This record gives sequence, structure tokens and C-alpha cells, in this order.
Amino acid sequence: MKVYLAGPDVFLPDAVEFGRRKVELCARYGLTGLYPLDNKIDLAAADASLQIFRGNEAMMNEADAVIANLTPFRGPGADAGTVYELGAMAARGKLCLGYSNDPGLYAERVARFTELKTGDGRLTDAQGLTVENFGLADNLMMIHALDLHGCPLVAPRQAAEDIWHDLTSFETCVRLAAERLAPAASR
Amino acid sequence: MKVYLAGPDVFLPDAVEFGRRKVELCARYGLTGLYPLDNKIDLAAADASLQIFRGNEAMMNEADAVIANLTPFRGPGADAGTVYELGAMAARGKLCLGYSNDPGLYAERVARFTELKTGDGRLTDAQGLTVENFGLADNLMMIHALDLHGCPLVAPRQAAEDIWHDLTSFETCVRLAAERLAPAASR
Repeated sequence: MKVYLAGPDVFLPDAVEFGRRKVELCARYGLTGLYPLDNKIDLAAADASLQIFRGNEAMMNEADAVIANLTPFRGPGADAGTVYELGAMAARGKLCLGYSNDPGLYAERVARFTELKTGDGRLTDAQGLTVENFGLADNLMMIHALDLHGCPLVAPRQAAEDIWHDLTSFETCVRLAAERLAPAASR
Repeated sequence: MKVYLAGPDVFLPDAVEFGRRKVELCARYGLTGLYPLDNKIDLAAADASLQIFRGNEAMMNEADAVIANLTPFRGPGADAGTVYELGAMAARGKLCLGYSNDPGLYAERVARFTELKTGDGRLTDAQGLTVENFGLADNLMMIHALDLHGCPLVAPRQAAEDIWHDLTSFETCVRLAAERLAPAASR
């Protein structure tokens, strides 16, 4: 069974090597990890970004499941590319798993970037825009997509020391995916 | 034909009234706008966020197209819930349109939040994470989803004065959707 490995891991300085570690971990549980950087892309080409898009779409079509790294990236929430892919996989009816190496709540995290206010029953940011405050780890679309199309978000009790390289919660997702996909395979 | 109106507009102080204006604009072009806040949700209920998720999924299933407001929200890129929904609609084969009231490039916008560095062929942020630098307005997954599943991102030449209420680019998307959906309806 094939698992698409979505996440901002592709932006790490050691992105290729780190993807290899994720793929190896999948193999230990009998799963084939599909990692975006394994697509052969000519980064010097004028249409490099389009090649990446097409490669990722092809991998998603091929995969039976997604494990999305939803660790907050460059702001209070998850990486946009990863979120897009989670939406695409949920809509395709694939098994959806995700993890975050930061166990905090979305509203708490927004408070680190902007001053929050309460008034007329809403929690708002400095721009007066409502801050989602349902006690969830991120935007409700991602969190409930995992609840309804796979397994609830996996997160550690405390933020991982190396938030970009800790694989504990990722491995939990791999184990859950293997348990959920295995019976389907042997049916 | 029905168009799902995705966007962080739901977080505006005048979210309900603003949605009404979007729906009215759709009607002027013969389209039915489906706005998330038109779902009846009991916000006091323990499962309010899940009700919102289910309501949005139902609206997306019903819609023939999506118009996503991808104006940067609480960071250098688009709102996560909107991005999730764009991914879901693209995967469902629906017509995908989107706009941003900020015409800047993603890499330029990241530079407002963090110091950028160049080295070993990569543009990186303060954490050493690669910054996508393909000359695109946002993460390539959203931008190329629009290119391949609908129409290229619509944006003004200059940032809209009222970035959260200007409907010029939205109206362009409505017109494009009406043009694209009309022939299909009369076939």
C-alpha cells in the first residue's frame, strides 16, 4: 500500500535525506512512502513549478493514503501546499492521517503573532478578523478532515525538541496507516 | 449553476452582510453563490466546528465551481481553510477560480515576515527553510491548481485599498465562472 508523504519537509536544508528516512520508516511497517522530491524535476526548466505540481498530483492519484505534516510553518498554521494536498486526498476518499510536532492550540499560536481581543462574542486579531476558537490545533477543515476521513491529528504532549526532524508522531501515523490499510489489502 | 464561495470572508466583522453581497453579485451573472455562513449552525453546540465542516463539505459537493479568496491571511499566504477547500474542489474535478487582492509575489511577502538569505542555490528564511521562489503569487499547488483546473489567479495591478472588501477581482472570477459554466449548462 502506498502513502503520500505531504509536508513542508521538502523545504528543509536536508530535504532529500529526510525524505529517505521517512520512506525507510514506512517500509518497516510494510508501506511504500511516496515523497514529492522523488519525482524527477528539472529545476532549471521554465515550467519547473508546473512539473512539481503534476508530479505531486500523479503521486496523490497513485497513493492509498496521505500522512500530512501539519506542524505550523511560517505562521500560526500548517503549510499551504500540505493543506491543499490534504483537501485533495480527503476529496478523493483516500485515508487521511496527519501530525503536528507542536501540540498547542491554534488560538494560542495566533496570540504569538498578534494581540487578541474579545468583544461582541468573537475573539479577534489586530485586524479585527475572527480567530477560530474551538479548542482545535488548527483550522477546523483540516482537523475534522482527519477525524472523518482517517484518524484524529497525532501530536506529542510537549512540542518536539527538533520540531522539523522529530519522527515520533510521524511514526505513530505510519503505524496507524499500516493497521488501517492492512485489513483492506487482505480482504 | 452553483458556485461555492470559499474565503476568509467568514472571519470579517461584517461576514454575513459581506457574504450577501457576494451572493447578489453571483446572481447578477446568473449563478447561485453558496456561502458557508448560510449553513444553519448552532455555535453554542459542543460539536459546532464539526457542524461547520459537514456543512461546508455538503455545499462543496453541491457546487459546480469554487471561487476562492486567496488574499494573504494572517501570514504570507492564503487562509488554510480556503486552501483545503480549493484542493478538495480541484480533486473533485470542479471548476476552480481564485483571486487575491494583493498582487505581490510569495517570496516578496515572506520577506516582510523574516529575513531572507540566499546560499547554495536556495532562498531561505530565518529558520533555514527554503522559500518557494518561482515568481508565483503563493504556494505552487494553489496557483497551478487554478491554471489547470480553471482559470489563472485573478489579482489587481495594485493591492486593493480595502483588501478585505474590494470585490473587483471577485467579480472578474464570477464573470469567468459564468462564461465557463454557461455553455456546459446549455449543452
